[in-house]
Amino acid sequence: MSSTVGQVIKCKAAVAWEAGKPLVIEEVEVAPPQAMEVRIKILFTSLCHTDVYFWEAKGQKPLFPRIFGHEAAGIVESVGEGVTELAPGDHVLPVFTGECKECTHCLSEESNMCSLLRINTDRGEMINDGQSRFSINGQPVYHFLGTSTFSEYTVVHSGCVAKINPQAPLDKVCILSCGFCTGFGATVNVAKPTKGSTVAVFGLGAVGLSAAEGARYAGASRIIGVDLNPKRFEEAKKFGVTEFVNPNDYDRPVQEVIAEMTNGGVDRSVECTGNINAMISAFECVHDGWGVAVLVGVPHKDAVFKTHPVNFLTERTLKGTFYGHYKPRTDLPGVVEMYMNKEIELEKFITHEVSFSEINKAFDLMLQGASLRCIIRMDD
Amino acid sequence: MSSTVGQVIKCKAAVAWEAGKPLVIEEVEVAPPQAMEVRIKILFTSLCHTDVYFWEAKGQKPLFPRIFGHEAAGIVESVGEGVTELAPGDHVLPVFTGECKECTHCLSEESNMCSLLRINTDRGEMINDGQSRFSINGQPVYHFLGTSTFSEYTVVHSGCVAKINPQAPLDKVCILSCGFCTGFGATVNVAKPTKGSTVAVFGLGAVGLSAAEGARYAGASRIIGVDLNPKRFEEAKKFGVTEFVNPNDYDRPVQEVIAEMTNGGVDRSVECTGNINAMISAFECVHDGWGVAVLVGVPHKDAVFKTHPVNFLTERTLKGTFYGHYKPRTDLPGVVEMYMNKEIELEKFITHEVSFSEINKAFDLMLQGASLRCIIRMDD
Ligand SMILES: NC(=O)c1ccc[n+]([C@@H]2O[C@H](COP(=O)([O-])OP(=O)(O)OC[C@H]3O[C@@H](n4cnc5c(N)ncnc54)[C@H](O)[C@@H]3O)[C@@H](O)[C@H]2O)c1
Ligand SMILES: NC(=O)c1ccc[n+]([C@@H]2O[C@H](COP(=O)([O-])OP(=O)(O)OC[C@H]3O[C@@H](n4cnc5c(N)ncnc54)[C@H](O)[C@@H]3O)[C@@H](O)[C@H]2O)c1
Ligand SMILES: [Zn+2]
Ligand SMILES: [Zn+2]
Ligand SMILES: [Zn+2]
Ligand SMILES: [Zn+2]
Repeated sequence: MSSTVGQVIKCKAAVAWEAGKPLVIEEVEVAPPQAMEVRIKILFTSLCHTDVYFWEAKGQKPLFPRIFGHEAAGIVESVGEGVTELAPGDHVLPVFTGECKECTHCLSEESNMCSLLRINTDRGEMINDGQSRFSINGQPVYHFLGTSTFSEYTVVHSGCVAKINPQAPLDKVCILSCGFCTGFGATVNVAKPTKGSTVAVFGLGAVGLSAAEGARYAGASRIIGVDLNPKRFEEAKKFGVTEFVNPNDYDRPVQEVIAEMTNGGVDRSVECTGNINAMISAFECVHDGWGVAVLVGVPHKDAVFKTHPVNFLTERTLKGTFYGHYKPRTDLPGVVEMYMNKEIELEKFITHEVSFSEINKAFDLMLQGASLRCIIRMDD
Repeated sequence: MSSTVGQVIKCKAAVAWEAGKPLVIEEVEVAPPQAMEVRIKILFTSLCHTDVYFWEAKGQKPLFPRIFGHEAAGIVESVGEGVTELAPGDHVLPVFTGECKECTHCLSEESNMCSLLRINTDRGEMINDGQSRFSINGQPVYHFLGTSTFSEYTVVHSGCVAKINPQAPLDKVCILSCGFCTGFGATVNVAKPTKGSTVAVFGLGAVGLSAAEGARYAGASRIIGVDLNPKRFEEAKKFGVTEFVNPNDYDRPVQEVIAEMTNGGVDRSVECTGNINAMISAFECVHDGWGVAVLVGVPHKDAVFKTHPVNFLTERTLKGTFYGHYKPRTDLPGVVEMYMNKEIELEKFITHEVSFSEINKAFDLMLQGASLRCIIRMDD
């Protein structure tokens, strides 16, 4: 590897040239990391809905050509000036949000929303110089979420890179980069159900099933899964979901249905849909006096959350969370250890696997709703 | 006193015969307490806005004739069957919400919203038999909030009675029955500002100033008072308020003004107005990442709380609270001790004092906005 240090690397990347059009595997040039950056050899990446949303760019700002991808695992190839906590050979997870360890958010125990390295879906360049590290014949190709893991090599700010146990299987722990931690952390770090409590999970995609896994881990006695898609229910049983509610099966609001099932409401709810009606239902279905609802889904930009304020006064709590309230550098190594100690299961989320050249198949599977996570092997 | 046990007591009460009409001091008959009830000799009572709202009955359900009053202190005259924790001679505070110690809420550490004895503004009778204990020449007079303290004697469910230190001056601690605890507890029990943090208080009435007192007690470094009425500002300084914002002085939303003053938002906010716009501003003015907003004010029944859900996703928390999250029987004795130990100040809330025969003056003072708390002495 050392031969590439300080050099431009030519490698394969899956480039999105246009919104909604299949990615094309191209030879790209990846510049060396600048100050506080690292260049990573990606070994495994997986596809998340957020990649699909920005690739479709219906509503989101279109920025093309772009290299998508943000759930991944790899090995550090080289580090830029000033990087002291990472070295070539380290096993790492790049993350779409960072931790500078110096801003008020990083210094606060309560926040993981680093002022410097917080997610920015509209940014297509590195913050150091406002330039891209990717190019094709001199034409720059945009980054995505500061990670762009659909490339054999990528450059990431060192504050967005978690160093993990080198024993950990990278083809499994790569899903900790986004989906799993987002849902699992929303439950265990934010909703915090106590042992024996009742939990409702709205939306049974990868994020919602991770939230359910969190409820199972916390010892919830009942985990009520809510989804409009009845196909999600069979799979959800593997994730500890004990009961199912499809809002379409009732002619009254689903929050009322859940309140009846639970003698006044669930102790905790976690919303993982991005749908505003589900957000309102998730809030209104928690028990008065002690219920806590946590929003995870990314809403439409014009969505408005509406409720009667008495629903708050009767002692309900509503919170939102971002990346499961994990600080990526500080907390991810511990989540990897939980997996190594068999406290959490990642295998059941991985429904498919494809080689890098077949990456568009991963998009098809997700668009059909057939996959939870499809792992993309870079070394084919 | 023992001569009255088991007997009907004839005494004076201030009766509201009609909405908005001055109260009339009448001789009423007060029946003995039934099972789980106590009869209390009221020594001091004070006037709260809630009395005024239900007396005006603009929007609220009119129920007349009625005996208002719910902030008070007195001495137990006699107890009904089954009452074991209270005895004649005990110094007590009646409270508009109760604690049965048996329901799921009372058994939960998180809730103070007792299922049996939770506030019910529409109920005018005792829950034991659905009858009133007050009458005038055989005509029943309705109760208010289960307390009806504008009477020399009243009957209250024993679950709504806190037994306190007999050394405590009843003409001061009577205000713990409602206003003070509601605001103070909203800050210290629910918003929980840490030492050195910034707190915004919306509404500088008795409840808001109690919330400010809570922020001072918790060691907040900045306490920003927000009110539409500039007259409230001078007084608020005595309550630790360090800065003032009048939303009418700005042509942009007050949450933006506060965010600019505080480098992104306050750490905590407490809304004590009942106004829906203030509720929304109180939520949106807290800092992302860790801000917590607490709603206290009682909103209009048609009010709708509206905000963009991204305000939650950026890790803000919104909660509501009721009676400052205090369980009346369990927690009030401790609040009385805090006063006895000079940890909290009650004197500054007491701006006026009148004799029972002058009770309508207390209404006038509140309607003019001249008083915070006006103590009514029953023994004149
Ligand atoms: N906050 C974060 O850090 C973060 C990170 C990643 C993803 N997300 C968001 O989490 C959400 C879930 O992600 P995912 O990958 O699991 O998505 P997904 O599309 O796989 O799953 C969403 C599920 O919600 C269901 N659904 C939609 N509307 C519903 C409604 N009204 N009631 C009940 N169910 C409904 C759908 O049928 C689907 O099964 C998305 O909004 C995504 O953008 C947030
Ligand atoms: N939750 C509970 O347990 C509980 C108990 C008692 C009282 N309350 C409620 O608390 C609230 C405050 O009670 P109080 O007795 O202090 O009332 P108050 O009328 O004395 O004070 C309210 C203050 O809010 C100000 N205000 C009104 N609209 C405003 C706005 N948009 N922005 C800023 N300031 C505004 C008013 O000018 C006034 O000074 C009321 O709604 C009351 O019903 C709740
Ligand atoms: Zn930071
Ligand atoms: Zn993702
Ligand atoms: Zn109870
Ligand atoms: Zn009151």
